[in-house]
Amino acid sequence: MDFHHQGLDITTGQKPSEECAVAGYMGNSAFTNIIFALKALQHRGQESSGIATYDGKVHIKKGMGLVSEVFTDDNLPGNIGVGHNRYSTSGSKGLENAGPFIISSSLGYMGISHNGEITNTHSLREELKNKGYIFFSSSDTEVMLVEIINEINKYGVYDGIKKAMFKLKGSYACAIMINDKLYALRDPFGFRPLIFGKNADGYIIASESTAIDSVSGKVIRDVKPGELIEIDSHGYKSIFVVNHEISHCMFEYVYFARPDSIIDGKEVFNVRYNLGVKLAKEYPCNADVVIPVPDSGRSQALGYSVYSKIPYSEGLIKNRYSDRTFILPNQKERYDAIRIKLNTIKSVIRDKSIVLVDDSIVRGNTMKYIISLLKRDGAREVHVRIGSPQIIAPCYFGVDMKTKDDFIADNKTIEDIRKEIDADSLGYVSIEGLKESIGINDLCLGCLTDNYPDVIPTGAKPNYT
Amino acid sequence: MDFHHQGLDITTGQKPSEECAVAGYMGNSAFTNIIFALKALQHRGQESSGIATYDGKVHIKKGMGLVSEVFTDDNLPGNIGVGHNRYSTSGSKGLENAGPFIISSSLGYMGISHNGEITNTHSLREELKNKGYIFFSSSDTEVMLVEIINEINKYGVYDGIKKAMFKLKGSYACAIMINDKLYALRDPFGFRPLIFGKNADGYIIASESTAIDSVSGKVIRDVKPGELIEIDSHGYKSIFVVNHEISHCMFEYVYFARPDSIIDGKEVFNVRYNLGVKLAKEYPCNADVVIPVPDSGRSQALGYSVYSKIPYSEGLIKNRYSDRTFILPNQKERYDAIRIKLNTIKSVIRDKSIVLVDDSIVRGNTMKYIISLLKRDGAREVHVRIGSPQIIAPCYFGVDMKTKDDFIADNKTIEDIRKEIDADSLGYVSIEGLKESIGINDLCLGCLTDNYPDVIPTGAKPNYT
Amino acid sequence: MDFHHQGLDITTGQKPSEECAVAGYMGNSAFTNIIFALKALQHRGQESSGIATYDGKVHIKKGMGLVSEVFTDDNLPGNIGVGHNRYSTSGSKGLENAGPFIISSSLGYMGISHNGEITNTHSLREELKNKGYIFFSSSDTEVMLVEIINEINKYGVYDGIKKAMFKLKGSYACAIMINDKLYALRDPFGFRPLIFGKNADGYIIASESTAIDSVSGKVIRDVKPGELIEIDSHGYKSIFVVNHEISHCMFEYVYFARPDSIIDGKEVFNVRYNLGVKLAKEYPCNADVVIPVPDSGRSQALGYSVYSKIPYSEGLIKNRYSDRTFILPNQKERYDAIRIKLNTIKSVIRDKSIVLVDDSIVRGNTMKYIISLLKRDGAREVHVRIGSPQIIAPCYFGVDMKTKDDFIADNKTIEDIRKEIDADSLGYVSIEGLKESIGINDLCLGCLTDNYPDVIPTGAKPNYT
Amino acid sequence: MDFHHQGLDITTGQKPSEECAVAGYMGNSAFTNIIFALKALQHRGQESSGIATYDGKVHIKKGMGLVSEVFTDDNLPGNIGVGHNRYSTSGSKGLENAGPFIISSSLGYMGISHNGEITNTHSLREELKNKGYIFFSSSDTEVMLVEIINEINKYGVYDGIKKAMFKLKGSYACAIMINDKLYALRDPFGFRPLIFGKNADGYIIASESTAIDSVSGKVIRDVKPGELIEIDSHGYKSIFVVNHEISHCMFEYVYFARPDSIIDGKEVFNVRYNLGVKLAKEYPCNADVVIPVPDSGRSQALGYSVYSKIPYSEGLIKNRYSDRTFILPNQKERYDAIRIKLNTIKSVIRDKSIVLVDDSIVRGNTMKYIISLLKRDGAREVHVRIGSPQIIAPCYFGVDMKTKDDFIADNKTIEDIRKEIDADSLGYVSIEGLKESIGINDLCLGCLTDNYPDVIPTGAKPNYT
Repeated sequence: MDFHHQGLDITTGQKPSEECAVAGYMGNSAFTNIIFALKALQHRGQESSGIATYDGKVHIKKGMGLVSEVFTDDNLPGNIGVGHNRYSTSGSKGLENAGPFIISSSLGYMGISHNGEITNTHSLREELKNKGYIFFSSSDTEVMLVEIINEINKYGVYDGIKKAMFKLKGSYACAIMINDKLYALRDPFGFRPLIFGKNADGYIIASESTAIDSVSGKVIRDVKPGELIEIDSHGYKSIFVVNHEISHCMFEYVYFARPDSIIDGKEVFNVRYNLGVKLAKEYPCNADVVIPVPDSGRSQALGYSVYSKIPYSEGLIKNRYSDRTFILPNQKERYDAIRIKLNTIKSVIRDKSIVLVDDSIVRGNTMKYIISLLKRDGAREVHVRIGSPQIIAPCYFGVDMKTKDDFIADNKTIEDIRKEIDADSLGYVSIEGLKESIGINDLCLGCLTDNYPDVIPTGAKPNYT
Repeated sequence: MDFHHQGLDITTGQKPSEECAVAGYMGNSAFTNIIFALKALQHRGQESSGIATYDGKVHIKKGMGLVSEVFTDDNLPGNIGVGHNRYSTSGSKGLENAGPFIISSSLGYMGISHNGEITNTHSLREELKNKGYIFFSSSDTEVMLVEIINEINKYGVYDGIKKAMFKLKGSYACAIMINDKLYALRDPFGFRPLIFGKNADGYIIASESTAIDSVSGKVIRDVKPGELIEIDSHGYKSIFVVNHEISHCMFEYVYFARPDSIIDGKEVFNVRYNLGVKLAKEYPCNADVVIPVPDSGRSQALGYSVYSKIPYSEGLIKNRYSDRTFILPNQKERYDAIRIKLNTIKSVIRDKSIVLVDDSIVRGNTMKYIISLLKRDGAREVHVRIGSPQIIAPCYFGVDMKTKDDFIADNKTIEDIRKEIDADSLGYVSIEGLKESIGINDLCLGCLTDNYPDVIPTGAKPNYT
Repeated sequence: MDFHHQGLDITTGQKPSEECAVAGYMGNSAFTNIIFALKALQHRGQESSGIATYDGKVHIKKGMGLVSEVFTDDNLPGNIGVGHNRYSTSGSKGLENAGPFIISSSLGYMGISHNGEITNTHSLREELKNKGYIFFSSSDTEVMLVEIINEINKYGVYDGIKKAMFKLKGSYACAIMINDKLYALRDPFGFRPLIFGKNADGYIIASESTAIDSVSGKVIRDVKPGELIEIDSHGYKSIFVVNHEISHCMFEYVYFARPDSIIDGKEVFNVRYNLGVKLAKEYPCNADVVIPVPDSGRSQALGYSVYSKIPYSEGLIKNRYSDRTFILPNQKERYDAIRIKLNTIKSVIRDKSIVLVDDSIVRGNTMKYIISLLKRDGAREVHVRIGSPQIIAPCYFGVDMKTKDDFIADNKTIEDIRKEIDADSLGYVSIEGLKESIGINDLCLGCLTDNYPDVIPTGAKPNYT
Repeated sequence: MDFHHQGLDITTGQKPSEECAVAGYMGNSAFTNIIFALKALQHRGQESSGIATYDGKVHIKKGMGLVSEVFTDDNLPGNIGVGHNRYSTSGSKGLENAGPFIISSSLGYMGISHNGEITNTHSLREELKNKGYIFFSSSDTEVMLVEIINEINKYGVYDGIKKAMFKLKGSYACAIMINDKLYALRDPFGFRPLIFGKNADGYIIASESTAIDSVSGKVIRDVKPGELIEIDSHGYKSIFVVNHEISHCMFEYVYFARPDSIIDGKEVFNVRYNLGVKLAKEYPCNADVVIPVPDSGRSQALGYSVYSKIPYSEGLIKNRYSDRTFILPNQKERYDAIRIKLNTIKSVIRDKSIVLVDDSIVRGNTMKYIISLLKRDGAREVHVRIGSPQIIAPCYFGVDMKTKDDFIADNKTIEDIRKEIDADSLGYVSIEGLKESIGINDLCLGCLTDNYPDVIPTGAKPNYT
């Protein structure tokens, strides 16, 4: 799987939906800097994009589609702004729930871009309604925003946000603007990434460091779990850090983030390379060549090759134009459809024993077809190595893996999966290997272990029975 | 450069424009098979796409854009058809000149998809006008078609096409249908590729073998230079081969074709890998890591790494969403724009001496920016290795490299270019090395040597003074 | 002027912008019934269209454009719904301010479609912010909605809405749904029209009676000024009527409404016919033929013809395809542009003395061109008769006529205007004649007299200095 | 029926399809003048629009849709050009057959815009193929063009066109450009209209005089049946007139042309007014009011009113926004769909005996619904008067009325139709009355009498058995 994320459908039946990208900027040309940041973070959300800036008045534009489709020749004025890319979810409601959200209140203007998932949305919304508040959408971000305003009205900005943090359950990494000040806010578990930096024009907040690179900026540091940072025209300061047991999401490293990003001090490419090394240790193999599934398995395959000393090559070619679909008038067998997306390089695979490396098994079907292609074109053996452990439980903290009918019932062994995809051998990296590859102990591994770092409110399990 | 071809602007000032994809099919579900083939050949032309089929009547659809944009839910009936993808050229006239061309005459129906460039279009058109013929477009394909019909009217299909071949100068690889028969026709020099094969439904003709793969077919063989092949419901037969001095275009191997294609018996990936090996021999280097410019330099970088024993890695990440452009409200320095397209992987490049491999130097600017990025992010040295010789002359045979004002005047040495892009060393593969890498002696090297395999008619040099 | 309203630019420099259409339905197929109603009311707003329905959950769709462009193959479930067409205004903010608005609160769900203009938006919003409320848009409808919720939270639905009515200044005709009940609400002045009726499926609320016709319904009666009506599955009841001095907007009859609508008991066609009769009495003329400016002056011209006994005919033909504009490469004189929209019928006008009738003088330019056309094509005399008095002051109650630089300065006499448009005579109907033609005394004539039925809050005059 | 022509489906089952608009211009700003002309002639064709100009080179643009949709900000250079609007036909093939057609031959460049229908297309095409000609489309215009070129090659321009006229059967009114000369050509029967004039910039040729009005031009005269006129920068001259029995199409006056056009000396409005007078004489009625079906019956209704002395009024209002269709989720009875298009004015029709006037009965259904609406809303009696005789036979000369299954079988009497539409009386104008109303004896009445002015080639009856 590469980082396009055009539909993830894991064998065990899951689908991420609440990942998003956030960005904030304080300085000259805020709009242009945010455009660059959102483009660099397009892989985190392709459904909608929006930017709001402030120069005494609020200026806002949102639209469905990629950053480049929404913003064609715009320029919003102002030296402060926040931006948002939203992931495509099945239950999406068009622009109604698209970020950023902007409100005016006795406080003045407030804008928020949110990545994550508030787990106690339902009870909080009821509680706030009973206090007289009114909601215009079904978004958890709106609930977070109203809760924050409610507390700020009582305790002021700093204490109000802190009070709100104790009420808000779940994950949130946010870029917030309140009038002419910019804030970075990250939940106490640190589920989702958030980082900030500086370039010639001013300060930038973003989901991943690659966005800071995209504006020729320098990373200052990650926002700490539980931290509120305030940025104004004079500089930045850390307002507070709410201490907590940290639980960074392992899925960012394994699958979601860009390989060139450095998250909580760990470079994603390097983590994936390490996962390849671990796989080579845990699941060695006597083979002729290591090849990746392009583009998602490349880092891991390089690690596997170096440790195992089996030569690395490219045996599969991806068609860059195969994104859009065509309803075939005469439904051909599926192998053809895959051939348009992926084809083999015969000289690399023919008569070879191959180690095939990818980041995860999605659509058992896709992996099955790839193996079939390789064998039809002459591969002798195909040994599959996967740079993540098996996912066995849903996520409540932002990677909204929804469960299918067969989620638990299916409960396949690795041998079952190997047989189904017709691989000669199959290895998933171990949880221990994963932790060592990332090099962080404070990880959320809920989807791998069914043990979560926090209690899950009942209302947060709508799709799980 | 990868095989998207979204604007080639070589340092010496050239731009290909007459490359196209052709496909033809004889058998069940001709339309569906051609759709697959054209999708697999999308890299050869993105401006327009068209398909014509025949079932007693001719059915045709053409449109501007990608195959997937033109054909959304169509189905043209018939067991025979031809298809065409057209490259985007500056002087294009929309659908007027888009393929395939279809005519009716005393012969019945005839359809043609053409890849290449007829060099004596001007004089042939005048000659045919004087014979009373009428032209509906400015296309060289129409001239070819009328010339063929003119000769067929006098000598019948086989002899007529042969007679026409002696009149038509330049390059052409064509899929032709005449009523219920399909023909593959390739010019005597064999400039442009043409191959045919078979799948469960019938016979397929295509510009590259990857199109045959895409329909789960088997390659039968390349169409020979100067050969006419006829395919009907009973099978295929070679009608004739006009002998000539063969001159395959080297640019197909170096740049244009897909790496998984096998052209005139040579796998493109393997040729590019060999070019990497040659580069390592001709321009060795004492470095820490070999990295490709993604996706275009990957095959060559692998070859360089294996021969030189310098480890291979990936040090640049390409943003898959950066295709569309945005007019920046405040024009930022260009480095930012590049950062959105390419970013570095710090752990791979920092403090390293790097061999950077690509297929050609396009936009000296782009290579310059990449080197600058690598150095700003900590690379110690950057040694550039290019998998093709320098281009010094225009092409008249289908890769319509148009000359810029500075084409000759500029006449830079390799050392000049090295300084301009700020590389620590720069090596282009030698012409001898190119020939050995391809493994074919009968190559057209006109754009590298200014010696062409055929006399160039005066009218064929409109952009060259 | 016909009822398309594609830009009103009166000689005195005004432009309506806050006219909208509202609709509500209680019964089977609520969505379909609202679609019909909104299509019948398309003349009241073409910028955006939206519908919300309720079946335990709220279903909503809004979009830019005509009803037929927004709703192509949708179907929102539920037996209750509200819909809205929004007028195109220069300062519009896309979908942000488009109706209907939907909120959830402790009350449950509430949806509102609003036609009119709240004049004390600014002070109310500040007051509500100070109470802790949060605003998501710049719309006066949102302020109205929050004010209503605020009062309902304190006093319950009936008394809360009544309390809110005493706070809300300006004009509002609304279709409201609160959970499974539908409400019609009209401001105490009765500025904007609101009517309700019944068809086979259930009850309908709409801005004009023609919407009730469009669903094969029967009108029950107009909603009274200051009245709240509640409709549920059992029937309807009047909850209260807040008494006040009534001030129906005269502009609805003169210009805005459809001729087939019956508003507050008066048929619009009949009012306009009466205006023609009045014009014939007040400004008689010795002429050969009466012709209308199509389609807007037809009713008035018929009245003029019958009273004056001067024959009626059609002397101008409107091109139905002239809506879209074309930027002329070589700017031709404007007469040509008008010729594409209107042309003369020579046999009707040549050598004739003509009475030319329209509803208002818009773009002095347009009328000037029409007279010029008629005279160039042979008309001997052109006597202009206008079915409304001169507009001399801005509107604050829903026809947001914005003032131009020259609004007061220009201050032209009728004789000045006659000379400018080159008419042989010019007559505007008198205010007394207008009142008699409508047959209602309780009219708002603010824009004709500069005397308004209510005090205008300072903030309500943003464009007037 | 007004002149939009969005689908004509006469009770007897016919549909026009070959009507088009042609225009040609010689002089400054040829492109702009043709744009105006085509916009004024939009009612003659809405499927596609195209313009070609010449300034040494040919410049051409064609597209699907209205003139204003195809030409948004274009400007084609040159002082000569031809333009074309094409009617929407069921069997249309997109841009392949759209006008104008442009060719280059030994003659130089030739462009043609054609209105009409060549009846011997099939045999001519075969004949020309046997001479070696090649055809690129299925259009009869291409056949005409090749035939003309073929004869010109033998006899020169003037004699060649004359020779071609003796071969071409059927109807044609054409604007032709041959290099820098413009030609108007009309078939010897004069079936379709063609007129020319002059404005400040130069000379214009057009299908109807309203196009000449649209460029502020003066009509010179109609092109005579069988005439070729040549226009160059010095002026115009009549080259020849081929004498023949003239047969102007009566349908142009009754239905197709704009009321403000003057065709072959007769103003269309006046003809339709006369038809109303005839109807009043032939089918008098004791009624209270005469109302038209808007906008198509207005001229006729005025004539009926004046002669009968029954007052004229407007009792039906047409919704200007009802063009686009909506697939109703719950299919309501059809009356509602009509209500959105047409509504009644109650004060005009209630308790009245009405004379309802239209130009033709299309979709018996539509007339039936209108009568039903009028009666449901209180009309006492509805007497229908139709400004054309009954159509009983197909057209081969440009109004391609295609026959339905029931064309002959149905063979309804007027009384049958009256009953079906539930009118209190029904009158069609007599053929004699039609001829007197137009004031021309030399009419083609084939569709009314089944007697045609010329022999119909067998191939010309594809839809008639």
